[in-house]
Amino acid sequence: MKIIVDVMGCDHPEKLVRGTVDAAKLHPDYTMVLVGDSDLIKANLGGGASNIEIEHAPDVITNDDVPTQAIRQKTQSSLVRSFSILTGSDDAIGLVSGGSTGAVLTGATLIVKRLSGVKRPTLASFLPTVDGKLVCVADCGANVDSLPEYIAQFALMANVYVKAVRGIESPRIGLLSVGPEEKKGDERTRAAHALLKELPINFVGNLEARYAISGDYDVVVSDGFSGNILVKSTEGTAKMVMKLLKSALTSSLSSKIGALLMKKSLKSLKKKMDYHAYGGAPFLGVKKLVIKTHGSSNEVSTAASINNIILMHERNIISEIETGLAAFNGATEQQ
Amino acid sequence: MKIIVDVMGCDHPEKLVRGTVDAAKLHPDYTMVLVGDSDLIKANLGGGASNIEIEHAPDVITNDDVPTQAIRQKTQSSLVRSFSILTGSDDAIGLVSGGSTGAVLTGATLIVKRLSGVKRPTLASFLPTVDGKLVCVADCGANVDSLPEYIAQFALMANVYVKAVRGIESPRIGLLSVGPEEKKGDERTRAAHALLKELPINFVGNLEARYAISGDYDVVVSDGFSGNILVKSTEGTAKMVMKLLKSALTSSLSSKIGALLMKKSLKSLKKKMDYHAYGGAPFLGVKKLVIKTHGSSNEVSTAASINNIILMHERNIISEIETGLAAFNGATEQQ
Repeated sequence: MKIIVDVMGCDHPEKLVRGTVDAAKLHPDYTMVLVGDSDLIKANLGGGASNIEIEHAPDVITNDDVPTQAIRQKTQSSLVRSFSILTGSDDAIGLVSGGSTGAVLTGATLIVKRLSGVKRPTLASFLPTVDGKLVCVADCGANVDSLPEYIAQFALMANVYVKAVRGIESPRIGLLSVGPEEKKGDERTRAAHALLKELPINFVGNLEARYAISGDYDVVVSDGFSGNILVKSTEGTAKMVMKLLKSALTSSLSSKIGALLMKKSLKSLKKKMDYHAYGGAPFLGVKKLVIKTHGSSNEVSTAASINNIILMHERNIISEIETGLAAFNGATEQQ
Repeated sequence: MKIIVDVMGCDHPEKLVRGTVDAAKLHPDYTMVLVGDSDLIKANLGGGASNIEIEHAPDVITNDDVPTQAIRQKTQSSLVRSFSILTGSDDAIGLVSGGSTGAVLTGATLIVKRLSGVKRPTLASFLPTVDGKLVCVADCGANVDSLPEYIAQFALMANVYVKAVRGIESPRIGLLSVGPEEKKGDERTRAAHALLKELPINFVGNLEARYAISGDYDVVVSDGFSGNILVKSTEGTAKMVMKLLKSALTSSLSSKIGALLMKKSLKSLKKKMDYHAYGGAPFLGVKKLVIKTHGSSNEVSTAASINNIILMHERNIISEIETGLAAFNGATEQQ
């Protein structure tokens, strides 16, 4: 079984190479295919591992490229080459890329293609919660103008995903809205609520954005536009509060001494809010496993993404998603 | 000139009374009318002030009441009495309430009524920014399913408001979306972008939620649903990070000593993120000034809200909003 890692188009290709080597050592049954500038890859292999292959792809898709054009025209780019390898054999099970989000999602849709019955694939991102766990937000920005039935499908797909990678038997799923009551929200959200109630999932109702990272939810489903706002404002606010804290810590001599004494505690706080530990966001609803990692990914997040691909593969989440959606689509068509 | 303060229906009516007394002393030209349980009010007047009147209203509208029903039926409630006094004379210029948001907005719409030309009034809330200033989010949750022209009106009204209360000549106004580019966002946001570009305001384009509190914007306009998610996730995340920080600070003896040494710096950090200092959220677009303060408001936020009513009154923001909207409505009707 092969896992493809597109190491280009992100901030630190060398860290993706090193993270892949770490993962290769942990998973000798899988072959890792590193795609990108072969000189750069070789220079960062370290001791390497026997289950690593290198695919030279000199060209890079950047955030300045128009995704659809780039996917069609930049055939020698590391990303398009990665997708070709992914779709080229049954052996290739998944792809990790830290490149342009738009290009990764476009490539997944155009080259890997949607699973039958999937209206819109969804990008599912984890946020750390206040109790040291994680909450999955789906959709977190791959979609806008989602119809209520898309949101219902996001919930079904995220349910399968969170079960697989976090081992939660019955994930608590909340619907992002402006108030906890069923009637709160815009027209789309109220219609989605009615659909979610009927699904074979643990739907716990609407939630307000202030409780998204409270630890009371395993999954937050949303239309994509508001989910993106939730994820980005949560990340942005946490970052800014930490920045303010840092400047407070160095604002006076006594603060500096205090900060030294608290170093260990502050480090554990920072670790709690570190997104690297849990890897990238899968694009659920396409025919193979695709994970988009952060542009600033490091060794830890690369290895975590690869690990999640293996977990998802071993738990058969693609066929589970197909089965779940077939039941849902059958039910809605009968109505 | 009278300013009415509904002290009931919030967590600490006594703090609203004391905050009003503070404001009354600062503004001897205005009369403050305290509405609520007269025994409770009298017990908290302290030395009082000569420019304070008390209106006994024994009944309370709570968050459990259905707003429309409560406004129509609970005629002896402090909130409905407050609205009656507000609309009863030209002398009464504004109202501050810490009661049920739904009831305050419903009362403002049904009793005070919209200004001519206003499609939807907007609730405009301040968030503290990382550089120690403020950003106004409009709409922050009074509306859902907003049309693009509502969003354009929110921008015009927030522009007038921020000029008045913050003294900024040309507020930088951003449109909440999922990416900075003009074409990013859902259908509604793209249409709103096109309208905002044509307005006589300092529209600086789309913004991502992660930069809302960066200090780069004075106003963030949104449809109301996503604005609510922005405000609540920002407040929720800041609160949770502070909670994590607090538990980190007391996790070991050396941390505790460190925290003591940093007490002053941490206090200034907490103050930076304190929403009390800048008062409540005005409901812009109705015929009189209405401010909804937080249910947990204290003396400081009550006095700040009253102060903002006076600022808005002295800057004639109601007639400014009318003029601005008339120009906009004239322009869109010509198209």
